[in-house]
Amino acid sequence: MRNPIDCRPERYLDPRGVDVAILTGSLLSLGVQPNPDLAAAIARGVNDWTLETWVRPFECYKGSILIAQQDPTQAVAEIDRLGDDPGMVQVLMGSASEAPFGRRAFHPIYEACVRHGLPLALHIGGEGTGISSPATAVGHPTTYFEWYGSLPQSYMAHIMSMVTEGVFERFPTLRVVLYDAGVFWLPHVMWRFDKNWKAQRSETPWVKQPPSRYILDHFYLTSYPLEAAPRPEYLHRVLDMIEGERTLLFSSNYPDWALGDPFDMVRDLPERMRQRVMFENAVSVYGDRLLAPQRVARR
Amino acid sequence: MRNPIDCRPERYLDPRGVDVAILTGSLLSLGVQPNPDLAAAIARGVNDWTLETWVRPFECYKGSILIAQQDPTQAVAEIDRLGDDPGMVQVLMGSASEAPFGRRAFHPIYEACVRHGLPLALHIGGEGTGISSPATAVGHPTTYFEWYGSLPQSYMAHIMSMVTEGVFERFPTLRVVLYDAGVFWLPHVMWRFDKNWKAQRSETPWVKQPPSRYILDHFYLTSYPLEAAPRPEYLHRVLDMIEGERTLLFSSNYPDWALGDPFDMVRDLPERMRQRVMFENAVSVYGDRLLAPQRVARR
Repeated sequence: MRNPIDCRPERYLDPRGVDVAILTGSLLSLGVQPNPDLAAAIARGVNDWTLETWVRPFECYKGSILIAQQDPTQAVAEIDRLGDDPGMVQVLMGSASEAPFGRRAFHPIYEACVRHGLPLALHIGGEGTGISSPATAVGHPTTYFEWYGSLPQSYMAHIMSMVTEGVFERFPTLRVVLYDAGVFWLPHVMWRFDKNWKAQRSETPWVKQPPSRYILDHFYLTSYPLEAAPRPEYLHRVLDMIEGERTLLFSSNYPDWALGDPFDMVRDLPERMRQRVMFENAVSVYGDRLLAPQRVARR
Repeated sequence: MRNPIDCRPERYLDPRGVDVAILTGSLLSLGVQPNPDLAAAIARGVNDWTLETWVRPFECYKGSILIAQQDPTQAVAEIDRLGDDPGMVQVLMGSASEAPFGRRAFHPIYEACVRHGLPLALHIGGEGTGISSPATAVGHPTTYFEWYGSLPQSYMAHIMSMVTEGVFERFPTLRVVLYDAGVFWLPHVMWRFDKNWKAQRSETPWVKQPPSRYILDHFYLTSYPLEAAPRPEYLHRVLDMIEGERTLLFSSNYPDWALGDPFDMVRDLPERMRQRVMFENAVSVYGDRLLAPQRVARR
């Protein structure tokens, strides 16, 4: 049943042993809408609807504070409006953007996340639309297949930008969760970047550690959709490279399972990692708020 | 001695046991120059100068036929002009581009490469300049450090585009050599793409095999600059994933060694792979022409 989606816990969560689900919605192009006031108003409306419809009535749902980053001032106001609500566990931005997220204009958003102890979640999916430039460095893909395949390039660029611009020196407690992009691309980003840092760091003296250290300390990855490596040990090797036992979180992408069942995707996880990916890492990233009762704060 | 560069074989090649060096030049932004006639004229001039100055006088140098892809007709004419010269061993395009390389407009270039039995070489380095869009999917990097780190995203997009648009179904003997981008990013491209292909292939029915098969059969990588993986076995694992014993070629980036000595970079290659990377794979990709005397064809 896809439309209307049946999100009663007994339909999906209970049979699969899911205690808590974080809702992210699907407004992935909000940050590349031309009109910043319209985008900010939509964000506020979606957040109120999320709280009222899902978070307040159901103990098992936690919400994300959706923001539209093209007007950082309104984005900060929205984080401040809802940032202490125990039903909201993260700030959510689409990764589609006119500018990479290290830029100074976005720093007040990170300051607000840190002020409320909230991780920042990014979600790919609006790349190449609205006021953004093409979805790749060399122009527009022609098919959905090509476009969807290229989406992690957006995260690579944001990660490099945030590290390069010193975001994690300025906000050392900021954590960033990356949705919907797999894991195999991260070692490349870390180690190309580390190599270049040795030769090029004079340009960015505030980048004091090797880039891989900032990346592993501040970014978290999610399991949907894990790449289709031909052998399970390839997955194990890459999880080893990215400290996956600490940095990988289960994600379901519910209700869009075009790429497969999210529980099948984590079938090949090393056994020693399973409990961490399915539960403990999320508690570590989101803190006590993830399991706290939310109704006490009803306004 | 950097300026003028001393490229006499006894200065660099002989002491390091290099028998043959393929010249690529540094005009990496030629394909994103606004004026296609100027770009094509520069390409012709550079090619003639390369032959006259380096390839004809020295047995050890082989040339690349530089083209400017924004006017495919002139690019094809240049390939046809020099494509049978035994001193030229590949066609060379900068990867910086207004459009990804799977687009139909570029297919005549691939047809010309195949007609002359020449591999196509891509070289990153002009991304985000001239008539191209920003160097990432989410806008312009702010520093050289950030920009240079992001460059392999250009290759990822071109690979996806060429596979998606069926270039290798149409030109099954085409080989593509990717310069200057490392190797760790390729497994991600293959296996994200393979996974999506299973769900999304109805859109591109001409993509008959899993994308990883086209990629491993048609693309070759080069060793400068290999990423700075913290442990040699990480490199070995990734070389295993990309069939590196067959797909990796040594490259020197001479005379720009800002990121280190190219011979140091291959120090951690598995011993069983060394002879292939340093010699045999190049002969396999470039064929007899790589070792053939070039002076016989002097015009």
